[in-house]
Amino acid sequence: MDRRKFLAVGATAAAAPLAAPSIAKAQTTFNWKMTNAYGPGSPFYVEGPGSPTDFCKKVTAMSDGRINIQHFAAGELIPALEGFDAVRSGAVEMNAANAYFWAGKLPAAQYFTTVPFGLNFQGMNAWLYHAGGMELWDELYAPLGLKALPMGNTGVQMTGWFRKPIESVADFKDLKMRIPGLAGKVYAALGVDVKLLPGGEIFPALERGVIDAAEFVGPYQDRRLGLQNAAKYYYTTGWHEPSNVTELLINQAKWDSLPADLQAIVQTAAMACNLESHTWCEANNAAALKDLVENSGVIANVLPDEVVAELKTVTDKVLAEGAAADPATKKVHDAFMAFKAEHQSWAAISEKPYHNLPG
Amino acid sequence: MDRRKFLAVGATAAAAPLAAPSIAKAQTTFNWKMTNAYGPGSPFYVEGPGSPTDFCKKVTAMSDGRINIQHFAAGELIPALEGFDAVRSGAVEMNAANAYFWAGKLPAAQYFTTVPFGLNFQGMNAWLYHAGGMELWDELYAPLGLKALPMGNTGVQMTGWFRKPIESVADFKDLKMRIPGLAGKVYAALGVDVKLLPGGEIFPALERGVIDAAEFVGPYQDRRLGLQNAAKYYYTTGWHEPSNVTELLINQAKWDSLPADLQAIVQTAAMACNLESHTWCEANNAAALKDLVENSGVIANVLPDEVVAELKTVTDKVLAEGAAADPATKKVHDAFMAFKAEHQSWAAISEKPYHNLPG
Repeated sequence: MDRRKFLAVGATAAAAPLAAPSIAKAQTTFNWKMTNAYGPGSPFYVEGPGSPTDFCKKVTAMSDGRINIQHFAAGELIPALEGFDAVRSGAVEMNAANAYFWAGKLPAAQYFTTVPFGLNFQGMNAWLYHAGGMELWDELYAPLGLKALPMGNTGVQMTGWFRKPIESVADFKDLKMRIPGLAGKVYAALGVDVKLLPGGEIFPALERGVIDAAEFVGPYQDRRLGLQNAAKYYYTTGWHEPSNVTELLINQAKWDSLPADLQAIVQTAAMACNLESHTWCEANNAAALKDLVENSGVIANVLPDEVVAELKTVTDKVLAEGAAADPATKKVHDAFMAFKAEHQSWAAISEKPYHNLPG
Repeated sequence: MDRRKFLAVGATAAAAPLAAPSIAKAQTTFNWKMTNAYGPGSPFYVEGPGSPTDFCKKVTAMSDGRINIQHFAAGELIPALEGFDAVRSGAVEMNAANAYFWAGKLPAAQYFTTVPFGLNFQGMNAWLYHAGGMELWDELYAPLGLKALPMGNTGVQMTGWFRKPIESVADFKDLKMRIPGLAGKVYAALGVDVKLLPGGEIFPALERGVIDAAEFVGPYQDRRLGLQNAAKYYYTTGWHEPSNVTELLINQAKWDSLPADLQAIVQTAAMACNLESHTWCEANNAAALKDLVENSGVIANVLPDEVVAELKTVTDKVLAEGAAADPATKKVHDAFMAFKAEHQSWAAISEKPYHNLPG
């Protein structure tokens, strides 16, 4: 669909010259819907700079209204985790979520959200944009008539909230914990009873004791869910999610119907939101964590080194098993790990020494 | 200037309905010029994903040709460092460079490129986009009829190239070194004879012995200049430039003449390029450094801790003196340092432990 063709058609059909431009404009308007796995008002996932609703605003502004995307938070049009099927069927054109929610259908999709002990924000985007990651994502989704773009990233996440301190991996045993993705499989191997709950259901489950522990994002987002009122032990490091990609899922046939300029607008807006959303977390997490510790009695701690070392051993095993069980996963896994080794050799002499500079 | 007004005028003037859309389009086209402080073919600064020429392509694609920006590398229209005056006078609409090149006119501008022992990519963008940095940049440039947007970032840079090893700060004494920005003042305080040369002049100066040492960017960009053929000692850490912002400088009156949709396109393209250019460096530096070491006899080393500690002491002194000498610098300095303290308290429990995770 070429916008200039539309313009020509609009002009030919116009009775009076004055009406031509507005008719042409009306014919080139796309009214789309975007659903979201996260609930109304969620900071980063729904609201705020670089969020999915901000993405919709940017696209409307850049296209001067030629593409309008109506946003529906979880539950406003469909339930939280039904976006994949809704986009696939064409019921909606777009969905915002994380690809690891589709692990049941496509295990390899998990690598396009986050990998335990994997890549941070910079490494993940270097892999996706410039080292073959996007091509593998396209290859995985194309047979399903889907296309994905990264449109956000939380950066390093917090390990999560626990009712009791974690002193050894034995403390994970029989814990009921909300934790999605590959990290969930690592915890399961250590005896955790893993639950996959959407963000909006975490607080009531933790408060009522349906779960004993929960991972969500980081201080800024977690505080809004009120998790500090249901558990007090809050751990770092982000071994489980060193970064976390927000997925913009698009129906491929609808995408193909967009003229090239609107495709460029959508792609560029998603890339801008990727940076803007991430740096918004970076700007707000310090103050949020300070507030949680000072005003809500939260006990923030680093996971003991021995616990992290055991988590790494189990992660290697879980990832190897997943790759062995599914050729598509193996292909993505091997590419991811090759890039990780390369990127870490650079990070070891750039970002790592930066963090060790005198303050 | 409202695009719809233009469209209406175009339509009224059209003799035949068929011609109306193309006349309307012709009247809303902006043909702009962008100059650049870096020479033809420079990776990241001129060519490649997220570079200034890529920015121009993105803007043309998104606007469907309603704004076309003709790019001129250094020397193609004006010399390397004359972009500030060219944009100010309106001779060109845009310039790509680094704000620290304008230190002679506006000392505070240096803080919008990089600060020794300052903020990395994530912190710098968190400050600029979400913690008041852009507002301060606007305040500094507005009286000059200028507007700036960040449009790229190298990430952590390499300390640079030296003909002899650096074992103590005494080895800096009487060294003739190419080094711009605030780090140049730190080296000067340690007895370095500081030279400000554009990128394209570094290799001939280093090869002919006009300078003994040079800082440029990182492995990928430095290799293209051939610096490995003129000096063999290549140091990290990036104490001097923990990140480095590419500045898109815009003539404010020309900016004000753009309709809102084209302003949104320019802003979003700059933000997307900020991420894309940075992650391109991240994706390519490891292989470039390996190649330099294995095939060009480069000796890559970390600066000794005692040297870094002394550099920090001198940096604190130099920054304090600069702030005391200029109220505009003091205002920016104080805001930058307040945010740095806050951001580092978050980085200390997120990115820093990430880099210490078992590989």
